[in-house]
Amino acid sequence: MTAAPSDESLKRLQDLIGHRFQKPSLLFQALTHASALASNPAGNNERLEFLGDRVLGLVISDSLIKLYPNTDEGGLAPRLNELVRRETCAAVAQEIDLGAVLILAPSESNAGGRQKTAILADACEALIGALYLDGGLEAARAFVERYWSERLANLAHAPQDAKTALQEWSQGKGLAVPDYQIISRTGPDHDPRFIVRVEVKGCDPCEGGGTNKRAAEQAAAEALLFREKIWSPNDAPS
Amino acid sequence: MTAAPSDESLKRLQDLIGHRFQKPSLLFQALTHASALASNPAGNNERLEFLGDRVLGLVISDSLIKLYPNTDEGGLAPRLNELVRRETCAAVAQEIDLGAVLILAPSESNAGGRQKTAILADACEALIGALYLDGGLEAARAFVERYWSERLANLAHAPQDAKTALQEWSQGKGLAVPDYQIISRTGPDHDPRFIVRVEVKGCDPCEGGGTNKRAAEQAAAEALLFREKIWSPNDAPS
Repeated sequence: MTAAPSDESLKRLQDLIGHRFQKPSLLFQALTHASALASNPAGNNERLEFLGDRVLGLVISDSLIKLYPNTDEGGLAPRLNELVRRETCAAVAQEIDLGAVLILAPSESNAGGRQKTAILADACEALIGALYLDGGLEAARAFVERYWSERLANLAHAPQDAKTALQEWSQGKGLAVPDYQIISRTGPDHDPRFIVRVEVKGCDPCEGGGTNKRAAEQAAAEALLFREKIWSPNDAPS
Repeated sequence: MTAAPSDESLKRLQDLIGHRFQKPSLLFQALTHASALASNPAGNNERLEFLGDRVLGLVISDSLIKLYPNTDEGGLAPRLNELVRRETCAAVAQEIDLGAVLILAPSESNAGGRQKTAILADACEALIGALYLDGGLEAARAFVERYWSERLANLAHAPQDAKTALQEWSQGKGLAVPDYQIISRTGPDHDPRFIVRVEVKGCDPCEGGGTNKRAAEQAAAEALLFREKIWSPNDAPS
């Protein structure tokens, strides 16, 4: 196992986080990658990552609900996914230079572990879990607001889902709004399956499926956008 | 749209929940199914369900972390899934008789909507979201603890994942513990893929794949359990 990070580097990290840990053991655990503590799975940062993933999801969902008071669930979910995905968490980890203080096995450190997206993202989530346990939801929220507020603001201008993107595109072309029709609804009530067809003037219709009407509409819109080379989900802002 | 629930039924519901809403409009929204308010997607309970799903996930994760101080993430995740799944939420909804006070379109009500698992589960999550917005995380947590504590306690005795189940089975037979070996690790660092082989004396080996070692081990263990007709994930307690 590598040497623990220095007191000085931990002080600097806590300054960047904006929180002084009451229980520094939680901070140590958040920084401890599985490779450094293979013999004790409960002592590495995976449990804190498990918790922090849910803390982050709640804090971001709460922010989105307030930022977008008139947006339905279908518009909120892709924004949430964008903000909590691995690449976003790894980018935040890089902003606070988390890689430098991670506790890794020498082999993992030599293999570039301090720069790996997965390791950085997991450590960032573990840190959020540690903040929650040390200072409650508000301590975790303060950190998330500090590092996610610009990301939240940037989302506002981006087409966030296929239906919105298709509607904006058809409006931009002066066409009528896309027309969605349920083609079929099959399966039992507790596990339905919908097929929806979307039509936009001048394009062949596309179909999409899903376990609810909204998901099937999204899939149909996505198929049409993809086929017409207008947009792909990968265009979402990073 | 059907008539709103009576003041008396709302009082009874709040007694069962253990919370008196400061903003009764949040309670109304949590009870309002999309069918009753098709023209205003932001006014039905889907946004609250989106939020409540995350609140429930955090509260249960937090409880699991404390109940199982020595269990790694691979042991926590299946317990979480069991406790937050649709059927569990619908069962809680039935305990507080949520179906009776739901605001549904007459057509949905006539189609048995008040007994549908999906509608009940969604309303239960929406209620948790409303509690969070009305009284903070602690109000939501109090409700979840009231209705999930027995479910949490019952989990303690059940085999919760395939690796644990396989180990218990092989120990019960007086065999050595299952042996897991990584067969291959492919893909880029940010998106690795593992194939793991599990061997238990007296059985042909099985292989499983996943995006991390633990997931691949679980998949391999599950395959072996399934092939030997020892256990399937559906045996998990309800």
